[in-house]
Amino acid sequence: MSTSEPATVLVVFDLVGVFVFAISGALVAIRKGLDVFGVVVLAGATGLGGGVLRDVLIGASPPAALTDWRYLVAPVVAGLLAFRYHPALGRMERSVTVLDAFGLGLFCVTGALKALDYDLGLLAAALMGMVTGIGGGMLRDVLASRVPAVFRGELYGTPALAGAVVVVAGAQTDLPTLVVALVGGGLCTVWRLLAIWRHWQAPIPTGPASV
Amino acid sequence: MSTSEPATVLVVFDLVGVFVFAISGALVAIRKGLDVFGVVVLAGATGLGGGVLRDVLIGASPPAALTDWRYLVAPVVAGLLAFRYHPALGRMERSVTVLDAFGLGLFCVTGALKALDYDLGLLAAALMGMVTGIGGGMLRDVLASRVPAVFRGELYGTPALAGAVVVVAGAQTDLPTLVVALVGGGLCTVWRLLAIWRHWQAPIPTGPASV
Amino acid sequence: MSTSEPATVLVVFDLVGVFVFAISGALVAIRKGLDVFGVVVLAGATGLGGGVLRDVLIGASPPAALTDWRYLVAPVVAGLLAFRYHPALGRMERSVTVLDAFGLGLFCVTGALKALDYDLGLLAAALMGMVTGIGGGMLRDVLASRVPAVFRGELYGTPALAGAVVVVAGAQTDLPTLVVALVGGGLCTVWRLLAIWRHWQAPIPTGPASV
Repeated sequence: MSTSEPATVLVVFDLVGVFVFAISGALVAIRKGLDVFGVVVLAGATGLGGGVLRDVLIGASPPAALTDWRYLVAPVVAGLLAFRYHPALGRMERSVTVLDAFGLGLFCVTGALKALDYDLGLLAAALMGMVTGIGGGMLRDVLASRVPAVFRGELYGTPALAGAVVVVAGAQTDLPTLVVALVGGGLCTVWRLLAIWRHWQAPIPTGPASV
Repeated sequence: MSTSEPATVLVVFDLVGVFVFAISGALVAIRKGLDVFGVVVLAGATGLGGGVLRDVLIGASPPAALTDWRYLVAPVVAGLLAFRYHPALGRMERSVTVLDAFGLGLFCVTGALKALDYDLGLLAAALMGMVTGIGGGMLRDVLASRVPAVFRGELYGTPALAGAVVVVAGAQTDLPTLVVALVGGGLCTVWRLLAIWRHWQAPIPTGPASV
Repeated sequence: MSTSEPATVLVVFDLVGVFVFAISGALVAIRKGLDVFGVVVLAGATGLGGGVLRDVLIGASPPAALTDWRYLVAPVVAGLLAFRYHPALGRMERSVTVLDAFGLGLFCVTGALKALDYDLGLLAAALMGMVTGIGGGMLRDVLASRVPAVFRGELYGTPALAGAVVVVAGAQTDLPTLVVALVGGGLCTVWRLLAIWRHWQAPIPTGPASV
């Protein structure tokens, strides 16, 4: 979570989001045949990477994830549980993907709000919201030595950017932050869920590949 | 661009450099079959990655690219244009490579000058000039899950380092900054162009690969 | 090394650690067939990457490696020596691995102590000690486009974390820092050496890979 003294309920949501992202990182590591150390590190990189990347870029130092031990424990627990129970988790992957969409909606909102706190411009703040949502998964894929899933047709980054744009635009109005956050995060999560259910894909280049 | 209140002409040059680098990033993404989101992100990473990496390392926070919306718009436009017109761009690749050499010369100069502003030592400042020039392409290749081209025989990093060394050395003299910048950037660009035209390659290890 | 005005003997140890890590990075680059520029950059990334990553994360700006030219020269020398003499170095790889274990023990200690200086929490400080030890090798493998060795069964990260935990815990007592450092670093190095000699591996996931 981004702002100082956040409400307890928001911290709980945020920790759940980190946990769910961490599960997705651990499952990628397990499929790649990594050892238990790699599973836990990929869980942590996926759960915390987006927020850490945002904090490094906006100069919020040290990153929020390093100042609250609960953010470090959550992905370790997720990684160890996934290491032990991955066959069961694999059967629940659909549910993990749905929960992940809620995490994405949450992170694009909190990331954009934190960037606005640090006096970034509107466009940069929206970008930081998107980075908070997708940075962890990108770091996961780089560490697993594969092209990030978010570049391979999976509709993931655009909903995160859209949600962050709504939050940044709404923050310029008199609307309560809670309303703006719910609309922005809701847009992101609903769009992402529709993309999963309807198998929407981002367009890929057409024409000769000779280029 | 690095220094405060840069002349308009320098901002224009800098934006053109970002745009050209972004085109090269987009073309790599298109060849890899990434979707439109991946094409735009790789365009941005290639166009802005070197400067952002330099700013994170020297502690210039937030990075210059996040404080001026034009730096964010330039690579998005480049990425979308490349996505739409990549067959035509592919036929102009020779021209893109030549323009890229000018961008490299510009970035190694502006990067080294900014690092000197931040009181880094001479060697570190020269290194930061090189990082500004080659960091974007390295990030592009890491995100595309391939070994950076700058490590695979392409003579790219050494000219950037040479140009930055000239700038850092010249800044210790009474010569006008413009003269130093033109000599350093010119050395980098001319060397790079000669490497392209004469097919110069950096040496690779000899002897048994058993090591 | 991390703290201000470190004793000369510690700087010497630290430079030797950077040099040994850099040799391991150069050997990976040579095996991958990279050019001399890539060999030197991978040497530098491996030797300095862990400390730079730690400094960026804790907000120690600029990173220590950029403020002392000896830290920049050491990996360049290592890279060029490895480029020239890699067949001989390859025959000494056992010795390089042993020296590397000492470097790991040193870096997890100095990294954890520096993080404590920056007022991080205990868990975060231990994590930063581990990052200082393993970050360079992870960066080396990402730049070489392969899954980090530290995730592939090689027992490397856990000893580094254990050593850092000992240092962080010991720093809460009245024990002299030197004693705490020797115990923590010794635990890490001995554990790592035993893992090499006894072929200990970190566990990998069991059960169906269908997940």
